Amino acid sequence: MRPVRSRLFWILLPLLSIVPIQAETGYDAWLRYPPVTEGVLIDAYGRLPATIVKLDNSPTLTSAQNEIVRGVRGMLGRTLRMESRPVQGGMILLGTFAAVKQALPGTALAADLITDGYWLKATVTGGRHVLLITAPNDRGVLYGAFALLRHIALHERIDQLDEKSNPYAPLRWVNQWDNLDGSIERGYAGRSIFFEDNHVLADLTRAADYARLLASIGINGCTINNVNANPRVLTPEFLPQLARIAAAFRPWGVELSISVDLGSPKTIGGLNTFDPLDPLVAAWWKQRVEEIYRIIPDFGGFVLKADSEGRVGPSTYGRTHADAANVLAAALKPHGGIVVYRGFVYNHHLDWRNLKNDRARAAYDNFHDLDGKFAANAAVQIKYGPIDFQVREPVSPLFGGLKHTNETIELQITQEYTGQQRHLCYLVPMWKQVLDFDLRVNGGDTPVKQIVAGKTFHRPLGGFVGVANVGRDLTWLGYDLAMANLYGFGRLAWNPNLAARQITEEWTRMTFNDDPRVIGTIVHLEMESWKVYEGYTGPLGLGTLTDILHGHYGPNIESAERNGWGQWIRADHKGIGMDRTLATGTGYIGQYPPEVARQYESLETCPDHLLLFMHHVPYTHVLHSGKTVIQYVYDSHYDAAEEAQQFPRWWQALQGRVDEQRYRAVLDKLDYQAGHAIVWRDAVSTWFLRESGIADAKGRAGHFPGRVEAESMRLDGYTVEDVTPSEDASRGKAAGCNTAPKNCTASYTYRGKSGWHDIDVQYFDANTGVARFELFVGKQLVQSWAADAGLPSNIPNGDTSTRKRIAGIELQPGDEIRIIGEPNGGDNASLDYIEIKEPAP
Amino acid sequence: MRPVRSRLFWILLPLLSIVPIQAETGYDAWLRYPPVTEGVLIDAYGRLPATIVKLDNSPTLTSAQNEIVRGVRGMLGRTLRMESRPVQGGMILLGTFAAVKQALPGTALAADLITDGYWLKATVTGGRHVLLITAPNDRGVLYGAFALLRHIALHERIDQLDEKSNPYAPLRWVNQWDNLDGSIERGYAGRSIFFEDNHVLADLTRAADYARLLASIGINGCTINNVNANPRVLTPEFLPQLARIAAAFRPWGVELSISVDLGSPKTIGGLNTFDPLDPLVAAWWKQRVEEIYRIIPDFGGFVLKADSEGRVGPSTYGRTHADAANVLAAALKPHGGIVVYRGFVYNHHLDWRNLKNDRARAAYDNFHDLDGKFAANAAVQIKYGPIDFQVREPVSPLFGGLKHTNETIELQITQEYTGQQRHLCYLVPMWKQVLDFDLRVNGGDTPVKQIVAGKTFHRPLGGFVGVANVGRDLTWLGYDLAMANLYGFGRLAWNPNLAARQITEEWTRMTFNDDPRVIGTIVHLEMESWKVYEGYTGPLGLGTLTDILHGHYGPNIESAERNGWGQWIRADHKGIGMDRTLATGTGYIGQYPPEVARQYESLETCPDHLLLFMHHVPYTHVLHSGKTVIQYVYDSHYDAAEEAQQFPRWWQALQGRVDEQRYRAVLDKLDYQAGHAIVWRDAVSTWFLRESGIADAKGRAGHFPGRVEAESMRLDGYTVEDVTPSEDASRGKAAGCNTAPKNCTASYTYRGKSGWHDIDVQYFDANTGVARFELFVGKQLVQSWAADAGLPSNIPNGDTSTRKRIAGIELQPGDEIRIIGEPNGGDNASLDYIEIKEPAP
Repeated sequence: MRPVRSRLFWILLPLLSIVPIQAETGYDAWLRYPPVTEGVLIDAYGRLPATIVKLDNSPTLTSAQNEIVRGVRGMLGRTLRMESRPVQGGMILLGTFAAVKQALPGTALAADLITDGYWLKATVTGGRHVLLITAPNDRGVLYGAFALLRHIALHERIDQLDEKSNPYAPLRWVNQWDNLDGSIERGYAGRSIFFEDNHVLADLTRAADYARLLASIGINGCTINNVNANPRVLTPEFLPQLARIAAAFRPWGVELSISVDLGSPKTIGGLNTFDPLDPLVAAWWKQRVEEIYRIIPDFGGFVLKADSEGRVGPSTYGRTHADAANVLAAALKPHGGIVVYRGFVYNHHLDWRNLKNDRARAAYDNFHDLDGKFAANAAVQIKYGPIDFQVREPVSPLFGGLKHTNETIELQITQEYTGQQRHLCYLVPMWKQVLDFDLRVNGGDTPVKQIVAGKTFHRPLGGFVGVANVGRDLTWLGYDLAMANLYGFGRLAWNPNLAARQITEEWTRMTFNDDPRVIGTIVHLEMESWKVYEGYTGPLGLGTLTDILHGHYGPNIESAERNGWGQWIRADHKGIGMDRTLATGTGYIGQYPPEVARQYESLETCPDHLLLFMHHVPYTHVLHSGKTVIQYVYDSHYDAAEEAQQFPRWWQALQGRVDEQRYRAVLDKLDYQAGHAIVWRDAVSTWFLRESGIADAKGRAGHFPGRVEAESMRLDGYTVEDVTPSEDASRGKAAGCNTAPKNCTASYTYRGKSGWHDIDVQYFDANTGVARFELFVGKQLVQSWAADAGLPSNIPNGDTSTRKRIAGIELQPGDEIRIIGEPNGGDNASLDYIEIKEPAP
Repeated sequence: MRPVRSRLFWILLPLLSIVPIQAETGYDAWLRYPPVTEGVLIDAYGRLPATIVKLDNSPTLTSAQNEIVRGVRGMLGRTLRMESRPVQGGMILLGTFAAVKQALPGTALAADLITDGYWLKATVTGGRHVLLITAPNDRGVLYGAFALLRHIALHERIDQLDEKSNPYAPLRWVNQWDNLDGSIERGYAGRSIFFEDNHVLADLTRAADYARLLASIGINGCTINNVNANPRVLTPEFLPQLARIAAAFRPWGVELSISVDLGSPKTIGGLNTFDPLDPLVAAWWKQRVEEIYRIIPDFGGFVLKADSEGRVGPSTYGRTHADAANVLAAALKPHGGIVVYRGFVYNHHLDWRNLKNDRARAAYDNFHDLDGKFAANAAVQIKYGPIDFQVREPVSPLFGGLKHTNETIELQITQEYTGQQRHLCYLVPMWKQVLDFDLRVNGGDTPVKQIVAGKTFHRPLGGFVGVANVGRDLTWLGYDLAMANLYGFGRLAWNPNLAARQITEEWTRMTFNDDPRVIGTIVHLEMESWKVYEGYTGPLGLGTLTDILHGHYGPNIESAERNGWGQWIRADHKGIGMDRTLATGTGYIGQYPPEVARQYESLETCPDHLLLFMHHVPYTHVLHSGKTVIQYVYDSHYDAAEEAQQFPRWWQALQGRVDEQRYRAVLDKLDYQAGHAIVWRDAVSTWFLRESGIADAKGRAGHFPGRVEAESMRLDGYTVEDVTPSEDASRGKAAGCNTAPKNCTASYTYRGKSGWHDIDVQYFDANTGVARFELFVGKQLVQSWAADAGLPSNIPNGDTSTRKRIAGIELQPGDEIRIIGEPNGGDNASLDYIEIKEPAP
């Protein structure tokens, strides 16, 4: 029996996954294919031909055919006939140009399509309807299939289709920063879908389903391991395991690539050098690459991070980055593979005392002189800004600095510095600004998107790389709303001219539903979110004012200062900002082409949102908006935090309009974000108040009406502790319960007005255990909760500061409000404050 | 640490359950308390007093207070202050008349309330708003609390409340038929929430939550074990376990009662007799009851099934049912307990050859002569009809036959003969007909509801008993839509004058939501469902034409005939029906009061829907409707089965309007029901066609366009087998795969028209294993599925016959349709037929 069943199940697998799931887990993302229920549409789509013909048997064409069958079945409740040669009646015809030409000799094909582009064409020939999905190559046909399904999912007409679409750039990749042990660097959605315990997982269902998601948005490559690469990935034992992942990707036209360590010839190759100019080293790489292509014929290539953040690099032997890239490129070239060389190279032991030092200069300084030295099958991968994925940075000047070198732009889908998928921060609007930014190279029309696509300088290679870091969480990124970033990245990589709003609407309709109120609310939330996140975390180009030394998550303003990492904001009691001018500063601005440099160099023309990135100014400096810098800091933090309070309210209007499971999951996140936005607001405004000594003109900073500090409550068991940095706790202090296993109590006698109130309890949720809290009013237990959020720190600070809102409780003078904290496993049930307010209207 | 945490958790439990669940499982039934989101309502309910005062500490009043806090918190997002004495400001005041009189001496109380009745009164006294919830007893206050929450959940005004409500009858119970081993007789929702392995469960959370549901609809008693009682329930070892269940019920005002075995004095008491007139037996019962009341002071009493279906009874000693009831009644009387004596007594070895024999006579014949002999604290519990919970029966004549005896009416919430919660069959419309039926006792206005409530004959005791049989399934009854029966039973027991539609709307709004389309669709489905179920299962008063000897589920017409059970339909090739007339039949009709008897006796006046219950007529007999009996049978089965096909379609319009989890679960059930309705239609019409030899005037019966019998397909491995009864399979035959572990194949070459088609695969899903099927068209795998429905039989028959619809597949002449069956664990992947149709419009 066993063998029979196994074989049977094997062939069934793709189709079994059609069975509808019981609840919306987010796993299907934008490929849910829910039934079309409007009669008009059912009629219209009912005229779709009943047969789907694919003209050859490649895995990619098979995926295309299966996907259309699956989508049509889900959306229209019909099972298309699958045929492998043209039929007499109507048909959907899938095939490359070559195959279509052979099968239907008379067909005029679209000559203007390039690799991966597709053509959807509805025709009537000899009385039969033919819906042609064709392309120069297999992958293009697959993209055409997804495009057809997207039209149906968006309820668009398909009866008159004549759609040609070319990708904007040849290279559209994601990088995953997965470690071979199963952890993920900067991953916020569980462990790796590829690795565990230094092996590739036995079950690669998730890997295949990920490739399907990527294919649906036109992504054609995935680098599966951390750029801080484990040399083991190149060992003979590991290669067959990589081949299994490549096999899971192949049906979806996603090429596998890997990050490698330049030291590999020495660490695992048995050579005594990894000098890229040493012939033995070159031979070693050549032999390794040949072995890879023997078992992975469609292998994509290597990603290399060298001489950066502790990685070894060509500098060991006095060689250049081009030397390092080219030794790999030479090995890959005969097989069609490429090298992507990361431009993220800088000295992280920079002397902060030297006001001329500037990390932002590093990429340009390191690579500009090497322009033209890189092989034709190598590209330099440049982060969008000169620092590191901050909430706001200027565009990297290196994009304009390499005219004879292939480039890719590196965008970050995983929200490392932008809320780590606990905060909603939709990055497509930011990416659009970056991609549309005109560097005015040689005074021309040279937006970043055209440069990286190779259009500006006529490069053979180039494109878009997104750092994705999906994990085993069923939602892929850990947050349903964060998936808009993955979708948006893919859509922009295909066509950066798409409007952000259009992308967002597409995604919302496919991910949720067609209800205008749902679409309106979610699109609004997404489109507002970056501006709001920036508003409470990093104003005026300072970057995300987070703890740059640890979690990159909560506020810690001075972590940027006085160390070698070079993310300095150069703040003192008089002023703030990095002077990067040519005139008096680091000269960074001089890396830009003249028109752009002129704009940034002058305080008159430098835009407010990048002011403190480019200039050091006094707190009293007046912005173009008419506000002083210091008042802008206060205002933006209070305004943005206030807007974040509205996010869960807007979402609540969707109850019953989106499925319950995702409704609850998203509401929990938005509630959390609203609370954490206040932590940010208070930390940043407190720090600026202290540093500048200038009061908030609106009297908010440092004044907290209704707030009762834990340290001023009656404490039983709790002890008062300093929090570091001090701005991460209200008045710098918390009350910790170090008496485990005994509980602690903090009490307060209410003396305010009678009536309905909300009580916010601000506490610290350390990731070492699960503390519990109970809040009583008098003898009445009003709320109990667990501190189990899994935040990225084990101590009370801005990462762990969390709000519990207890809404709508009647308070009367004399009421005792009492919080019992139950410490657990190192989480000391620390309290910051309670805040008692009349309910928001 | 342990003790501290344990204590803490103990007090938290009730409040922790407030935490919203992640998906709608159905567990909260109609007590979901979702947030009120409309601004107008939020404002209106915002004027609710902020404090809730309960005037004493009884468990029931504590439940009332907690429930209002929970409901207000869920719906209005506010936490009421809980106080135990009146406050100065506004308040919701919970207390009995006595307590209110003491606390607020001036208050005028409603003198016209009886036990369990409640008064909701909104007043303004001295400038403060007081919302009074008061009642003669604690339980009434609890019912008032639920009434208030129901008003809010239904978005009704509460600012002018002045609502007095009394229960229609004192006894409002449910019977659970749970066995001590954890199984449930006629339970369709998993194992017992009370018992497992002859013990009471350690965790009684479910029992307490069930009591809460019951309390919310005014049910004041629950008999927890099968009427076919295990004597063990009365043993000294078991009583403390019963006390734990009573403790779980007590906060909700639900009195515990148990079913007992009359033989207990002998089987567990060590006596050599159970003669109810033996003083030792009486003393034994007295001592047992005293022990019960010692640990369960609010014990409700005993339910007794005796001399029926194999149970021992008073006949062993030549004693009467009254003797048996009274010995228990005497023991219970000093403690306020009651005996409910089941009237379901009949001879199940009746000679079917004697045309004068009639099981329907049994209850009246057994009990009528005992009228006036039962103790004042005993009641006779009478099933609504004279047979046994059939889809249609006349009202039991015994209701009118006992004028000096307390009565209860037994209704069945668990759908034993009405689809077992796999079919939607909402019974409130049937119950309404029964309760409103006027027996015209002594020519007066004597509807059943008034008689059983004790109103007609001025009895001290009486009421409504529903056989509920909820189980461990999270939906309680195994089907979200079936919960309307439990809700409706409770509401009718409180007030049988409520309209069915009103009850259904209430339930729908609270269980699902406020969307008019949701309400309209669900109310329509529920209200149609009994008529539809009757239409395809049991026309003209024949009762449910099911297998009465086994599962009581699928069709098996002749199982009723030629055996001692007496559910005969007396069919031959000329005619059908039981002649129960006085003139020529069993004389059953004579048990009714004269006016009713006259109506039933005459073919002229006997209503069509009871015709074959009362009369034997030729198939050609013309009904009042103008149709012949035989044509009516065909028409009703085809029409009702057709309407059942619409049920899933109507439901599909609610996608996105109800939560996904329940949407899917209900759709699966309705799809299954639509298929099984056709099994019923075909079995009944085939049987009638064969028996009568009279063709369907509309040419349907026996003709199955598009149907391809498994036995006429090309079979590889499958063997043709007879199905019993033959009407349960198309043409009486199936193809079974007895070659396990090898698969079998059935193939057919399609010769019909080209175009879109639906393919129905009719197969038998035995409960012994999980067979699997795959359907191919040509080489294309179109669908695969598992036969895992858990239906109540292990062989191919009308219980297991199941439809898999494969919708929307293009077929062309010459196509090979191939089904592969994979047998498993005794489920032989049996096939009945495939049916190929153009899609329904």
